[in-house]
Amino acid sequence: MNEAALTLEGWYALHDFRSLNWTAWTAADDEERAVALEELHAFMQEWGPVEEAKEGSSAVYSIVGQKADFVLMYLRESLEALNKLETAFNKTAFAQYTTKAYSYVSIVELSNYLAAGGDGGDPMQNPHVISRLKPILPQAAHICFYPMNKKRELADNWYMLDMDKRRELMRTHGLIGRGYAGKVKQIITGSVGFDDWEWGVTLFAEDALQFKKLVYEMRFDEVSARYGEFGPFYVGNLLTPESFEEFLKL
Amino acid sequence: MNEAALTLEGWYALHDFRSLNWTAWTAADDEERAVALEELHAFMQEWGPVEEAKEGSSAVYSIVGQKADFVLMYLRESLEALNKLETAFNKTAFAQYTTKAYSYVSIVELSNYLAAGGDGGDPMQNPHVISRLKPILPQAAHICFYPMNKKRELADNWYMLDMDKRRELMRTHGLIGRGYAGKVKQIITGSVGFDDWEWGVTLFAEDALQFKKLVYEMRFDEVSARYGEFGPFYVGNLLTPESFEEFLKL
Amino acid sequence: MNEAALTLEGWYALHDFRSLNWTAWTAADDEERAVALEELHAFMQEWGPVEEAKEGSSAVYSIVGQKADFVLMYLRESLEALNKLETAFNKTAFAQYTTKAYSYVSIVELSNYLAAGGDGGDPMQNPHVISRLKPILPQAAHICFYPMNKKRELADNWYMLDMDKRRELMRTHGLIGRGYAGKVKQIITGSVGFDDWEWGVTLFAEDALQFKKLVYEMRFDEVSARYGEFGPFYVGNLLTPESFEEFLKL
Amino acid sequence: MNEAALTLEGWYALHDFRSLNWTAWTAADDEERAVALEELHAFMQEWGPVEEAKEGSSAVYSIVGQKADFVLMYLRESLEALNKLETAFNKTAFAQYTTKAYSYVSIVELSNYLAAGGDGGDPMQNPHVISRLKPILPQAAHICFYPMNKKRELADNWYMLDMDKRRELMRTHGLIGRGYAGKVKQIITGSVGFDDWEWGVTLFAEDALQFKKLVYEMRFDEVSARYGEFGPFYVGNLLTPESFEEFLKL
Amino acid sequence: MNEAALTLEGWYALHDFRSLNWTAWTAADDEERAVALEELHAFMQEWGPVEEAKEGSSAVYSIVGQKADFVLMYLRESLEALNKLETAFNKTAFAQYTTKAYSYVSIVELSNYLAAGGDGGDPMQNPHVISRLKPILPQAAHICFYPMNKKRELADNWYMLDMDKRRELMRTHGLIGRGYAGKVKQIITGSVGFDDWEWGVTLFAEDALQFKKLVYEMRFDEVSARYGEFGPFYVGNLLTPESFEEFLKL
Repeated sequence: MNEAALTLEGWYALHDFRSLNWTAWTAADDEERAVALEELHAFMQEWGPVEEAKEGSSAVYSIVGQKADFVLMYLRESLEALNKLETAFNKTAFAQYTTKAYSYVSIVELSNYLAAGGDGGDPMQNPHVISRLKPILPQAAHICFYPMNKKRELADNWYMLDMDKRRELMRTHGLIGRGYAGKVKQIITGSVGFDDWEWGVTLFAEDALQFKKLVYEMRFDEVSARYGEFGPFYVGNLLTPESFEEFLKL
Repeated sequence: MNEAALTLEGWYALHDFRSLNWTAWTAADDEERAVALEELHAFMQEWGPVEEAKEGSSAVYSIVGQKADFVLMYLRESLEALNKLETAFNKTAFAQYTTKAYSYVSIVELSNYLAAGGDGGDPMQNPHVISRLKPILPQAAHICFYPMNKKRELADNWYMLDMDKRRELMRTHGLIGRGYAGKVKQIITGSVGFDDWEWGVTLFAEDALQFKKLVYEMRFDEVSARYGEFGPFYVGNLLTPESFEEFLKL
Repeated sequence: MNEAALTLEGWYALHDFRSLNWTAWTAADDEERAVALEELHAFMQEWGPVEEAKEGSSAVYSIVGQKADFVLMYLRESLEALNKLETAFNKTAFAQYTTKAYSYVSIVELSNYLAAGGDGGDPMQNPHVISRLKPILPQAAHICFYPMNKKRELADNWYMLDMDKRRELMRTHGLIGRGYAGKVKQIITGSVGFDDWEWGVTLFAEDALQFKKLVYEMRFDEVSARYGEFGPFYVGNLLTPESFEEFLKL
Repeated sequence: MNEAALTLEGWYALHDFRSLNWTAWTAADDEERAVALEELHAFMQEWGPVEEAKEGSSAVYSIVGQKADFVLMYLRESLEALNKLETAFNKTAFAQYTTKAYSYVSIVELSNYLAAGGDGGDPMQNPHVISRLKPILPQAAHICFYPMNKKRELADNWYMLDMDKRRELMRTHGLIGRGYAGKVKQIITGSVGFDDWEWGVTLFAEDALQFKKLVYEMRFDEVSARYGEFGPFYVGNLLTPESFEEFLKL
Repeated sequence: MNEAALTLEGWYALHDFRSLNWTAWTAADDEERAVALEELHAFMQEWGPVEEAKEGSSAVYSIVGQKADFVLMYLRESLEALNKLETAFNKTAFAQYTTKAYSYVSIVELSNYLAAGGDGGDPMQNPHVISRLKPILPQAAHICFYPMNKKRELADNWYMLDMDKRRELMRTHGLIGRGYAGKVKQIITGSVGFDDWEWGVTLFAEDALQFKKLVYEMRFDEVSARYGEFGPFYVGNLLTPESFEEFLKL
């Protein structure tokens, strides 16, 4: 049995990073901006019922630095639902004041490395498993997102290791993460076949410094040190309705 | 005898990824959009007769995320036919509301690794072979496209392996694919000499999750683990006439 | 104990590299430029009180070559404070004449490699430590900025070295830096989890040639020679109120 | 004696890849397009006399896919002549409807690996050599262009091989090319010191499939397998006066 | 003693590569173009007095291919002087018809590998040394520019060689260059700490083919073969006042 068979998948995920076109936004008149904001609010107000219906979860965070101004993060039941969301956003008057910055398509996953020898029950009937595969996004103060691969470079080839070795390495790797329980919430999304890296990692924390502590500590662990390959990092702050309004107010 | 001599080729393929310029599209007036849609429909209506005449096949899928909004995929008898298609599209009023996102030029191929010891008949007279070299694109719910190379990196050099070794590796690799029969339809297109990677892989499935399962399971197989080099991944949803109209409706 | 635990962090840092849109700037009329300059000055005048309150420090330098025209460098207490600064700048009339060139998000850090065997006191109560973690940016004639990684490439993998080896290597590496005391002031900022490289290095000097001497000398040291991976380099000149005005005057 | 000394050079080459700005082209009125076409034709009509005077050769091919819409390929006596051509094109009304896509600067060369032990005569007096160094570009149905390097990567370092080894490898490599005589015409241009890769390869064929067969077969040969590094591939179709007009007609 | 200490530095260098915006240039009216040319000439006329005062040297060359249309190369006493030059250019009416293509910041340097055992005199008092550190740019027919690094890749790590080995390798490397004396003039500029590569190489020749011969011959020398890493290459033709005018005339 291989990891593909042992992995459990939940909601599909889309991270939609956007930059504001400040020149267009500041050049618009008050009424144009009011219309844009109204359409943005209408768009975002559909998120609540979806979450209440347990059909998905959504979040919006600012991004620090020039890579993007904010990220819209969606979890939904299907690629069709994600596609409808991005298209609906693209049709709003507000979206016309934004430009595309980066996006990531993936699916929430739980590696079943450890569960293989479990109690034999169907994990998809386990409420704890379900809550991790279909997580409600926390309203934490900070977000961190980065995509990553496992390396396949000559002697450092994760995919040529046998499964026992991989399981052992992942077990000790997981212990570091557990040391940050209560400080950092982590959502792993798989993207093999969906996007350019193999996984997306989305972290949430009240104290952004914990992102650095966690990722740096992990980097000395063999799984990251020898086998980790990391894409761009995005870090940002929660946009509440108030702070999003403040961000957009001239 | 080498693989070049053993490979069979069929229709040429063009994947034409496009983004919609939403700002221009939403700024157009109803009549302009109506003209654009009319020209798009006229362009697409020429696909049916071509397929009926067995001179090619065509498909259109949305793409999830910012990499593109949709892909036009064409199979045709020649590079000239593909070129005429892209030029015809470029001349439509609709195309003026799109921007180029990515494209891929290749040709459907069947590796004859296994057939070398066949019955001696001309494979191009074999209807089963023909139907694989000149395939009618399925109307599956989902598409996945990615280009790839075989590595040539020091000790991990596919092209320095002898043919028996390559044949053996490809045989076990093929077994994984066969495990997804009925779930994932795969079209391999060769692009050595035509585009920047050596192959294009186009997958079709009713359940997008099967793309992830298949590609991830293969990654542990030596052919991918040691020798696979992967380009960008695109994943999307079938655009029926209705869903394409819905996608474009404001 | 690992480096993550041994590292001390201070102020968050944002390097905001900008290019002037000279065509727009020269096409603007005198009044438009006057408004833009007024808003720029108002924006920059808020830096002084922040520094007096010991809540941060700020600087502005021109950048030589086409990579950018100038960099706004901010040190602040939190990611929220940095985000507010960049947003406030983006809203000024002046910012509409600029384009984004590059940015870097990090946090001032002190590696505690050597301090581990210290006097046991809380380093965050040590005024010398505090002044390095929350440094007032010097008004030096020149700035140099570059991001960097420690390599993880087969036999040259910094993160697979044991800690004693790393400490010894860093000790001799540090001796080179000390040879430039009085000539080059160096601020190291960590960016693991925040941006695409692991560290940012910001150097200040009265004589720009010392940047070259220092970085080149270090390159022969094993820490850089075997383990250093360097991103883009930016070099520039102090923009005083007078030279900034001169730079913008037509 | 080294290869630099043994290599013979002929005409300088410029490959000028262009995309049509379809939005501008379709938005122009009939008269504007007529003026543009007239200037394009005037520009191209100067190619004939140059070829008759044996001072160069020129060709124009469409490019399939989004990388470019067409390529203007020039062979001339000097860099000055090439520069004048591109500048003259840039000044035409037609060029204002195009955008730059890619370009390549090189010089036709003949490797003298085999000729070193020749008859001692001056090769530049040999009409066969001259006709290969100053070739008239064929009006073949298809073109293929790609730049390439010889690798210098640890154990796979072409430039660290001794000359006898390189000569032997090139000899067997050349045999593959000879197997395509009559099917593929090949022009090798050297670009060390002129552009970002070491060589450009321009292939011409009546059957585009032969490009794939040739390049793929060569990839298993040690010269390519171990030492070849390939840039982007461009493939296209001959633009005759008629098909170029058809391409541009709305 | 290390190379940093043994290296002598002279004038700072800025290579400012520019593309002409032909669409804007051809759309301008005669008077607008006249104003632009006048400002360009006024800008360039300040170069002569600087050179006469031995405070710098300047040159302008066209660039062949799409990478740029021309390069402005400046040698000056300080980064401030270079920055003033680029800003002054950016403010001209002519610059508004250009776009940025590439730039490089460096400083003329002489490696003192061989001089270490010299006569003990101060090399900065040696007129021959001074004339190489503060060179007057030749009015040669052709220019070639490329940036480069010395590799640090596992077993091929220049910076881990001991100094005697490096000195010996550089000595034989230099012999190749000397074989081109009278054919190619070479200016080496160091850019560690200033720009993204470690050195810039600017070559001047009456016969452009000598660039290829020289760089290709060097590539077989161990210093380049094992340790050289090369950036983009730019090649071009001298722009005299007459040919620059011709280039810009419609």
